[in-house]
Amino acid sequence: MIEAAKESFSKQGFMKTLGAEIIHIEKGLLKIRCKKNEGLTQQHGFFHAGVLTSIMDSACGYAALTTMEKGSDVLSVEFKTNLLRPAKSDVIIATGRVVKSGRTLVFCEATVTDETEEILYTTMQGTMISLKPTN
Amino acid sequence: MIEAAKESFSKQGFMKTLGAEIIHIEKGLLKIRCKKNEGLTQQHGFFHAGVLTSIMDSACGYAALTTMEKGSDVLSVEFKTNLLRPAKSDVIIATGRVVKSGRTLVFCEATVTDETEEILYTTMQGTMISLKPTN
Amino acid sequence: MIEAAKESFSKQGFMKTLGAEIIHIEKGLLKIRCKKNEGLTQQHGFFHAGVLTSIMDSACGYAALTTMEKGSDVLSVEFKTNLLRPAKSDVIIATGRVVKSGRTLVFCEATVTDETEEILYTTMQGTMISLKPTN
Amino acid sequence: MIEAAKESFSKQGFMKTLGAEIIHIEKGLLKIRCKKNEGLTQQHGFFHAGVLTSIMDSACGYAALTTMEKGSDVLSVEFKTNLLRPAKSDVIIATGRVVKSGRTLVFCEATVTDETEEILYTTMQGTMISLKPTN
Repeated sequence: MIEAAKESFSKQGFMKTLGAEIIHIEKGLLKIRCKKNEGLTQQHGFFHAGVLTSIMDSACGYAALTTMEKGSDVLSVEFKTNLLRPAKSDVIIATGRVVKSGRTLVFCEATVTDETEEILYTTMQGTMISLKPTN
Repeated sequence: MIEAAKESFSKQGFMKTLGAEIIHIEKGLLKIRCKKNEGLTQQHGFFHAGVLTSIMDSACGYAALTTMEKGSDVLSVEFKTNLLRPAKSDVIIATGRVVKSGRTLVFCEATVTDETEEILYTTMQGTMISLKPTN
Repeated sequence: MIEAAKESFSKQGFMKTLGAEIIHIEKGLLKIRCKKNEGLTQQHGFFHAGVLTSIMDSACGYAALTTMEKGSDVLSVEFKTNLLRPAKSDVIIATGRVVKSGRTLVFCEATVTDETEEILYTTMQGTMISLKPTN
Repeated sequence: MIEAAKESFSKQGFMKTLGAEIIHIEKGLLKIRCKKNEGLTQQHGFFHAGVLTSIMDSACGYAALTTMEKGSDVLSVEFKTNLLRPAKSDVIIATGRVVKSGRTLVFCEATVTDETEEILYTTMQGTMISLKPTN
């Protein structure tokens, strides 16, 4: 399902708009990198909370997809973002991780950090749902 | 603070990227409109959950700002999105509403609907923090 | 499914411990009443956030169950509580409401208020899952 | 502030009702143990989601208090619980951990596991607020 995750990610026009790219993928874990430009900012010139959340959501969704049955598709059910500090760096990394993969629901966590992965900007808890091949 | 909210919104480069515009603003209530294009989609061609969340976040933040002391600025502390059904319409409306405005924290709710405001796509609970003029 | 909801509620030993009782039930809507005693308090003598959340969770769960297929059971997937102000009244009312009932997942909202239902203490967004009779 | 956290915890009548006790406390980290009895169950005889959330909330709150300025008190602003699997064990451990301690807000995470701390039942993200001594 790693190839399926990459292919589905490539179909998300919004990830292109954000300039977001997958930099690591393995079963249950996915990292996305995003570089700042003026079109991604909030009123102080830092990354908008919506950008941070968007790449955490895609990181969770595709980390979840790598653990699902062949032919499945993935949708987000819900997610929660906590914003610890303004994301002031020029490059950010979202890491999505599967915490528990069930038959229908996959529970994930994500973070956004700076490029060194040392400064934590945001965290996410989220639930993804598997759309079965036969649906 | 209504003018302050409009001005701060206009400084969010990310809202320009989304093509998002304020269509209604009063004390404690703000509506944002966004029109679909290929750059805002997920893998099935519908609005990406991140877009929906981003405009709900800005709607909450600026609804909150309209209730704050003159000279304040606003930051998001946390928010939670529930995704009820895929946002299949071409135009979406995010409505942010202040539920309780305290001295430091402002608690908000938001929705995204289609343009008729009859089909509910997503809901948000969120907390905003007031940055005081003297800080 | 209204009788099924009442019967399942009566099996929750924890609701007895809280002295919580259903005071209203219809399809997709359920109200629970709870009276304060010293065993339900936090450090200032008000209702503990955990009590407020517990009765909102049960209110959501059983509101959800009333909308499910006959023979179903219900479990909580996730919920989020925002605490607007300390719950200082002696009697509280939790109201759970179904926002969207799907085949597998039911999305709900809840509040806790004082007995007049005029002072809002907390809000919840939550997701419930239907366990099918044949599972 | 470790003594302050223990003392405030001892004033929570609700923690007594749950039979919850602090089994570990250090700066920014707190563990609470709870043993099952019929008064803490949901309809299948497992721990009620409200019990799990209540001890995670207190674990977060008092972990947060240990990082606050002397004389402070703590209140919960919001928290989010994800329920990964039914909590079927007889003893559960809630672990609350401070992720970022700011001047006003403290961001925490928590889990509930079985007694071996190997089976993960629930996770929480939460925000706590510091009530200053002079307020």
